[in-house]
Amino acid sequence: MSVAIIGTVALDSIETPKGAQFRTLGGSAAYAGMASRVFSPTALVSVVGADFPDEHMTYFQEKQLDTSSITVLPGETFHWKGYYKQDMAQAFTVQTDLNVLMAFDPVVSEQARDSRVVFLANIDPVLQQKAIAQFSRPELIVMDSMNYWIESHLGNLKDTLKLVDVLILNDQEIRLLTGVSNLIQAMNTVVEMGPKRVIVKKGEHGAIMFDGKTHFACPAVPLSDLVDPTGAGDSFAGAFCGYLARETVWDESVFRRAVLMGVLVSSFTVRDFSIGALKPLSESVLRQAYADYYAVSGLPAHF
Amino acid sequence: MSVAIIGTVALDSIETPKGAQFRTLGGSAAYAGMASRVFSPTALVSVVGADFPDEHMTYFQEKQLDTSSITVLPGETFHWKGYYKQDMAQAFTVQTDLNVLMAFDPVVSEQARDSRVVFLANIDPVLQQKAIAQFSRPELIVMDSMNYWIESHLGNLKDTLKLVDVLILNDQEIRLLTGVSNLIQAMNTVVEMGPKRVIVKKGEHGAIMFDGKTHFACPAVPLSDLVDPTGAGDSFAGAFCGYLARETVWDESVFRRAVLMGVLVSSFTVRDFSIGALKPLSESVLRQAYADYYAVSGLPAHF
Repeated sequence: MSVAIIGTVALDSIETPKGAQFRTLGGSAAYAGMASRVFSPTALVSVVGADFPDEHMTYFQEKQLDTSSITVLPGETFHWKGYYKQDMAQAFTVQTDLNVLMAFDPVVSEQARDSRVVFLANIDPVLQQKAIAQFSRPELIVMDSMNYWIESHLGNLKDTLKLVDVLILNDQEIRLLTGVSNLIQAMNTVVEMGPKRVIVKKGEHGAIMFDGKTHFACPAVPLSDLVDPTGAGDSFAGAFCGYLARETVWDESVFRRAVLMGVLVSSFTVRDFSIGALKPLSESVLRQAYADYYAVSGLPAHF
Repeated sequence: MSVAIIGTVALDSIETPKGAQFRTLGGSAAYAGMASRVFSPTALVSVVGADFPDEHMTYFQEKQLDTSSITVLPGETFHWKGYYKQDMAQAFTVQTDLNVLMAFDPVVSEQARDSRVVFLANIDPVLQQKAIAQFSRPELIVMDSMNYWIESHLGNLKDTLKLVDVLILNDQEIRLLTGVSNLIQAMNTVVEMGPKRVIVKKGEHGAIMFDGKTHFACPAVPLSDLVDPTGAGDSFAGAFCGYLARETVWDESVFRRAVLMGVLVSSFTVRDFSIGALKPLSESVLRQAYADYYAVSGLPAHF
């Protein structure tokens, strides 16, 4: 396998100004996997309940996602219920039913153990560490997290940070983690905590990457027709990992293209509910999207 | 003259996490003029009190800023007192002494009337209209404004909007003006109000321009060492106008370079109090700054 993604597979009930969906396919691993598989063979390491619809599992397999590390447990699948206000800038949680997620103990299958790139999506940092230990020789470990773990499990999170190569957070999360309000300073602080690289996702403002020396700033795709922002960050990270996994040499220019792929793919994610807009994604669709994006954000090389 | 800037010349008392300054040179016209003059001959249309230090007026003249449209009135110069908190994201006003600004009635001198580019900095929209009427044949009218005029003088502001070619606002202001939270949609709404182009200044996230058809997104220069954000927006607009005024053909690529100049110049403004960091600015300094910036934000032309 090229990429393994450790995270949640969920049934989400979501309301946005553009509509509502009940128990639709979601979860960080589902979004990240649907993005990564555009570029590289990808395995999902997750857990679902006995109620998880067969059609979703079949769908993953049809899309060449390896499901051999998805544990099925008695009980119900993780369920998140939330909504977005008019500006869609922030998710408001109504209800979180952890269900089988409470018993999640990641088991990386034989065929996923040799993954080159491991993406630790937003879960308990202790589980992230347990997952890392099961890979034979991961070349790149990428990590996401969120406010809850930063506020309530900071010690464990900092331990995991020492094991990862790339940390991906949004602007609020990195400010919370570092206690630094200036994003450029906050990125400096992160590379002192362990990761060699840090990427800050800034939603409508794009993303910025820092490797301890050089910054790369990448505007977002201008979008006026957001439908559902859920999964934007997860699919950003999935595309980043998937793109890297198919390259042999990881120089700065490849990392930058990986960030660009994250920006492009997440601009699709938000145009539909659930993984709807990720389904038809292919490299040729992205190539056209990049041409459009370059017309918006390409800079002249000289003055 | 190439550029005329209608706005305030002030004495500012400012406190930021990096220090404090008492009655230092400020005001929208001062900042915008110091940026514009790097590229084009520029006139300031403003008012000061009898207390305005000669050294500042001499300094403007030394920097080739035309001061023949600065009225000197009996009384005190406009004085703003404010501070910034740790994140420097927002100015907090402690005291505003309008002083001679209350009697401001812009008089554009003979030598400034033929200006090609007119920048209406943030003042009463009625005064903006009175200024416009005094130019013989302005080719481009650029306008800034702020929350106060949007909230309390919306009718007048909308009248002025019908006369201008380019509106420059920050993200909060455009949301307030249009009532639309999505920035891309809000820009659409602005071009329906009159201006052919709109530019949104997003501080640490850069700027985005829209001409009714095409977007141009431009990341900010990564900065960890802000000293005083005052005047960043004014110097952005001044650089934009000054750069345009020296070009004969205004196609999309020239407008984009003008935005880039705004982004670069404002990245200098915030590195010192008052106009300190604008003093040594020259085209060759900016050329080097652009090379550094391109290393951060240049995108590959193809995938």
